[in-house]
Amino acid sequence: MARLGENQYGKAEIRVMKVDRDRPEHVLHDLTVGVALAGDMAAVHLVGDNSAVLPTDTQKNTVHAFAREHGVGEVEDFAELLARHFVDTQQAVHRATVSIDEHPWERLADHSFARTGRETRTTTVTYDGDRTRVRSGLRDLVLLSSTGSEFQGFATDRYTTLPETDDRILCTSVEARWRCAEPPADWRTSYDGVRAALVTAFADTYSRSLQQTLYAMGTRVVETCPGVEEVRLRLPNRHHILVDLGPFGLANPGEVFHVDDRPYGLIEGTVLADGALPDDWADDWASGGVW
Amino acid sequence: MARLGENQYGKAEIRVMKVDRDRPEHVLHDLTVGVALAGDMAAVHLVGDNSAVLPTDTQKNTVHAFAREHGVGEVEDFAELLARHFVDTQQAVHRATVSIDEHPWERLADHSFARTGRETRTTTVTYDGDRTRVRSGLRDLVLLSSTGSEFQGFATDRYTTLPETDDRILCTSVEARWRCAEPPADWRTSYDGVRAALVTAFADTYSRSLQQTLYAMGTRVVETCPGVEEVRLRLPNRHHILVDLGPFGLANPGEVFHVDDRPYGLIEGTVLADGALPDDWADDWASGGVW
Amino acid sequence: MARLGENQYGKAEIRVMKVDRDRPEHVLHDLTVGVALAGDMAAVHLVGDNSAVLPTDTQKNTVHAFAREHGVGEVEDFAELLARHFVDTQQAVHRATVSIDEHPWERLADHSFARTGRETRTTTVTYDGDRTRVRSGLRDLVLLSSTGSEFQGFATDRYTTLPETDDRILCTSVEARWRCAEPPADWRTSYDGVRAALVTAFADTYSRSLQQTLYAMGTRVVETCPGVEEVRLRLPNRHHILVDLGPFGLANPGEVFHVDDRPYGLIEGTVLADGALPDDWADDWASGGVW
Amino acid sequence: MARLGENQYGKAEIRVMKVDRDRPEHVLHDLTVGVALAGDMAAVHLVGDNSAVLPTDTQKNTVHAFAREHGVGEVEDFAELLARHFVDTQQAVHRATVSIDEHPWERLADHSFARTGRETRTTTVTYDGDRTRVRSGLRDLVLLSSTGSEFQGFATDRYTTLPETDDRILCTSVEARWRCAEPPADWRTSYDGVRAALVTAFADTYSRSLQQTLYAMGTRVVETCPGVEEVRLRLPNRHHILVDLGPFGLANPGEVFHVDDRPYGLIEGTVLADGALPDDWADDWASGGVW
Repeated sequence: MARLGENQYGKAEIRVMKVDRDRPEHVLHDLTVGVALAGDMAAVHLVGDNSAVLPTDTQKNTVHAFAREHGVGEVEDFAELLARHFVDTQQAVHRATVSIDEHPWERLADHSFARTGRETRTTTVTYDGDRTRVRSGLRDLVLLSSTGSEFQGFATDRYTTLPETDDRILCTSVEARWRCAEPPADWRTSYDGVRAALVTAFADTYSRSLQQTLYAMGTRVVETCPGVEEVRLRLPNRHHILVDLGPFGLANPGEVFHVDDRPYGLIEGTVLADGALPDDWADDWASGGVW
Repeated sequence: MARLGENQYGKAEIRVMKVDRDRPEHVLHDLTVGVALAGDMAAVHLVGDNSAVLPTDTQKNTVHAFAREHGVGEVEDFAELLARHFVDTQQAVHRATVSIDEHPWERLADHSFARTGRETRTTTVTYDGDRTRVRSGLRDLVLLSSTGSEFQGFATDRYTTLPETDDRILCTSVEARWRCAEPPADWRTSYDGVRAALVTAFADTYSRSLQQTLYAMGTRVVETCPGVEEVRLRLPNRHHILVDLGPFGLANPGEVFHVDDRPYGLIEGTVLADGALPDDWADDWASGGVW
Repeated sequence: MARLGENQYGKAEIRVMKVDRDRPEHVLHDLTVGVALAGDMAAVHLVGDNSAVLPTDTQKNTVHAFAREHGVGEVEDFAELLARHFVDTQQAVHRATVSIDEHPWERLADHSFARTGRETRTTTVTYDGDRTRVRSGLRDLVLLSSTGSEFQGFATDRYTTLPETDDRILCTSVEARWRCAEPPADWRTSYDGVRAALVTAFADTYSRSLQQTLYAMGTRVVETCPGVEEVRLRLPNRHHILVDLGPFGLANPGEVFHVDDRPYGLIEGTVLADGALPDDWADDWASGGVW
Repeated sequence: MARLGENQYGKAEIRVMKVDRDRPEHVLHDLTVGVALAGDMAAVHLVGDNSAVLPTDTQKNTVHAFAREHGVGEVEDFAELLARHFVDTQQAVHRATVSIDEHPWERLADHSFARTGRETRTTTVTYDGDRTRVRSGLRDLVLLSSTGSEFQGFATDRYTTLPETDDRILCTSVEARWRCAEPPADWRTSYDGVRAALVTAFADTYSRSLQQTLYAMGTRVVETCPGVEEVRLRLPNRHHILVDLGPFGLANPGEVFHVDDRPYGLIEGTVLADGALPDDWADDWASGGVW
């Protein structure tokens, strides 16, 4: 005999563009929205009774309609509005998670824009009828230092071949997620502050390892960004391998590198403000990012 | 002040091909391997002291060398061998997670092969010096039913526009992960059984919703596959939208569909054998798949 | 002053699934269709007069409607039907190119299917009101030989470091495009024959270079496939690099390979039947594949 | 009997990072380089005689070594230097095509950079021992106008359902390739000028169709950029579909759009300076972009 365990369902990757047109300078909100709902869903799984199922198509419609009715504004606010709606209006839904990616554009003129292709701003908001959990974040922020990075003194064993280096390229694509003790006065200002802290700490830290750089970046965030009490970082180490030009009679003093795709290092870590409780990991399924 | 929270590091996407050449019929093991280690890593984060850090380059070398020394065999066994090695030989490493994707080929001749492009077999093994957790799985198994699927009687609200349907295409790309109470006698036989159960249940279930199909697939697995006590399924609903040909004076009785990329439904659920304890969700960070 | 040169426009990547339901065993036609039209389009470019422009949305509708009215059948036939329609019914359109990818599925039961993920069958048909040009093809057919491949005796210069090898893995992802002197009796039979010739020639050719293998594959096609008078092949060389396990005290007699993503070799060549004229390269813009 | 037709071979996607370190402010040249060679290659195809084959591995080494020996500078110059080298030093090589993508970074500090993710600058240079052909270009420049675009007065037929619109979003990802009558004094200045012309023309053109916008962009380039005598443009029409919010009692005056992935329109065209000869299309195989 079998029984149903944890489950959720929803609409993923709703691609919506909202244009604010009330001023001569239009404003774009270019979003990818995901919704995940959980609750009293035994009947649909066990006997195909759909009466508790709000279709994923309706979830998509709701995102569209809310963009028009309420505007988008800051993604954290828009995600919370949606999450609350699903829980508050559907008796069977006990928990809603709304995740939003915001894609950046730069203005060319009043109605003209170019996509910047810089990092994507992200948020994940979960509401369970009682508490609201908000995570802000970013991904695909690619940073590189062409010097000021070494890697020495590491553990060795039978399988070690890597030479020590006192000067290498350090390159990573930052994925970050953070939580604030209280919602900040303005999410955009808070976002800009965290982004600046991450970038600045990367740029001005002499790196003995990517782990050290990660910790420096996280520390900069929790120590300088008001209200941020935890930041998680996932930093792939995009290896730039110094090419041996010796066979061609050439020295290569940190000038020519092969950029490798795979494999890559992957450094993950969490930095907390002193006194902050660790996050409630068991809720991760709820936050939509867990498998 | 800041402090370090959860962290791990390792090498991701090590692409290794192992050829067994001891018989006239060569055998391929085409793998993508990921390693993640955790333990006493405070010093590297806080002060850049790398003495506890086994470089990710060494991890890659170890995968290569182990493929030669021990062969690959079943991916669950190979992953466990690697996970134990890192914990048993590195004092600072308290937990190792090894994830492997195995890419399928079909034989053309003794030494010639074609990639099948069918589903990828997966495993994730975690060892913490005490317990070993093994998960087997698959992904990118794309299944479709051209009839025998309806979606009716669902909840409606102000934002509902979806019409009910008593005949639609149901299409999904199965991602599954399961655990066995005990390691089976042969991982390959176990894998083939789970795959067959998933496919057969999908094909012979009349579907009132994808949730119901998910539960039928999961139930089939735990009820017919010896030793499997839990299976998690993630089923994107790849929408095939019946095209309205009315404007052209044509009926369209389930024949012509637009295949949509985004958005898509995403149905996730767990099915457990009666008596099986739910999995220990808090360990998910350890299993490498959690963000 | 400026003037308009070559131009064309159309709809790309129309994803359509046609289900034949007239027998208990349903049949799938899973297509990605592209349309490109050219003709008297000066007015739209120069002054925005759209009167000669058949919207790309209408092109998409036509694909949908034709799938229902005429069925899909063989992709070469369906593409030609569409190409002729646009030229024959739109005075301003002097040339239409229709390209189709067909994605393969295997039957599980009468109405159930699994995507095989093997190669994609392709076609490109151009009609200019007078002539019809048909090209058949395939791509993403990944083949590998685990032995029976060497690479020696090559040219060397100051920048040579590659050692010669008498035993390596040879792996490629075949992209092929061929033309027949006359339309074959059955396009599917013709396709199966070409595919078999490519695979068989790859498998039974001892390879001194990928160029030699390419020529052997092309020769096999034009010599054994009735009516095929030219085949073009594009073969990336997916390098499998033998790992040096010497530092770990291990020999590696062709067993453990690193699979590299980039860079890769790219070998392109054409094989013609004796007496066949070379293709009319200048028409390539028309065939939609040219930039 | 079979015979060999057109052929070429080379190394694709060589990922190289060159750092200029001679000043405190480092400069990055982040390139993806492709090489394709053609010439007396009958023996390798027919009998596997590799004596005329300069291995693709050597080509890669040459790119690395040249980056060190000569620096990278402007990609057009670097590509030409490489193309000439292969033809001038290898007797069997009669034609070399070198294609380079340059990936943009922005400076954060002397040695720190962030990838901008904006458009990629491209070039393709072919040398045949006699003539040098240079093409400059860009791709992935994503532009959007939130108003100032209509689409009306188009041709209609039985399959028309698209309503006319006098206000829509116009969005495209620009791919452009141009040629200069003579090499400009400075390739970077020339590039910046063409990019600015493309962006400005897109932003200040009231659009009656994407074809008209394409022609306006091309005209701006050839009329304002010194020496540019031809520009080819490939403009996908990234459809933003106005969502019908009527069922929810909401008007939607150009505010909420569904961003569709596929299908998309694809508008391609060439604009020439008065008096410029059309390009020599038959050479396209040589330029590496032809299939």
